[in-house]
Amino acid sequence: MKIKREIRIIGFDDGPFVKGQSKTILVGIITRGGDWFDGMLKSEITIDGRDATDIISSIINSSKYKRELKVIMFKGLTMAGFNLIDVEMLYRKTSLPVIIISRKKPNMKSIGKALLNFKDGKERMEIIKKAGKINKLKLKNNKNIYFQFYGLEKKDAEKIILLTCMRSLIPEPLRLAHMIASAFVRGECGGRA
Amino acid sequence: MKIKREIRIIGFDDGPFVKGQSKTILVGIITRGGDWFDGMLKSEITIDGRDATDIISSIINSSKYKRELKVIMFKGLTMAGFNLIDVEMLYRKTSLPVIIISRKKPNMKSIGKALLNFKDGKERMEIIKKAGKINKLKLKNNKNIYFQFYGLEKKDAEKIILLTCMRSLIPEPLRLAHMIASAFVRGECGGRA
Repeated sequence: MKIKREIRIIGFDDGPFVKGQSKTILVGIITRGGDWFDGMLKSEITIDGRDATDIISSIINSSKYKRELKVIMFKGLTMAGFNLIDVEMLYRKTSLPVIIISRKKPNMKSIGKALLNFKDGKERMEIIKKAGKINKLKLKNNKNIYFQFYGLEKKDAEKIILLTCMRSLIPEPLRLAHMIASAFVRGECGGRA
Repeated sequence: MKIKREIRIIGFDDGPFVKGQSKTILVGIITRGGDWFDGMLKSEITIDGRDATDIISSIINSSKYKRELKVIMFKGLTMAGFNLIDVEMLYRKTSLPVIIISRKKPNMKSIGKALLNFKDGKERMEIIKKAGKINKLKLKNNKNIYFQFYGLEKKDAEKIILLTCMRSLIPEPLRLAHMIASAFVRGECGGRA
């Protein structure tokens, strides 16, 4: 995969929500590499639902940014509670590779336990497994970041992560998506991505 | 005024709206100079109302970004139809200088005519006058940008505009505020700021 410095990436995050809410905001930010805000998509997904993958595929595919996009990024496999990203389905529907980032090593045991609360917990566990094993990458500040990937080579996923973490400890589109989704709900962004 | 390359600026824009709506979204984006997205504020203002100045003062003053902010920017003096920015009141309430940008030279005659439709049109015209005369500045691409300013010196306003237009023809916080407010309403941003 040819990775230009200005590679177009979309990074998604959900907005904060409280108990009793049925849906929450979903924000996708498009950057050129780790540097330049290029655009934004917005939708809503169901809390603890199963619609995240479908909605994300559909807003990407109908977007004017689609033909320039080269990769989709997430922070963790779960959005809006336990609305899971099915990386295989997302790749099939959009033809775009997927990178999942995590600051801390995801605790699969506790995720598995939480999924037991769902009637379709077993199915959800199968979706999680599609993202494969968790890899570690050292950033230039010597801190580790964890990642999974689908539809691209490991070395390309690493290159893209390093490129988009140029100025932060989290890839730039994910940093922005987090702040913007949070500000929409709360009126001001707080904390870090 | 000492102008650092990383000077914190907040730029506001409103979301698109249709006839019959009573309010529209207001987005304020904080950048460091022309370069780095630092945060976001969000509220709502009344279409053709008189609440923009009050709401903007109040969300700035209660924001955690307040003590770092050095200047407020707008694209034009009107938001959400003819909800005017009272630069004098905004400066008095926030102690922050204000810069108003315009790509084209504002047509004061046609604005004055539109204000005749309001019962308080004369008062609104007085608010517009507070922003003073319209100045011209040549950007590095040789295109002109128009501006008004309040609470700072002209040469400082010019420096700040040039600094924040580093990578675009519109100051970066205003470019971002426009795209984000628009994506929030329409699901995707379109057109340029």
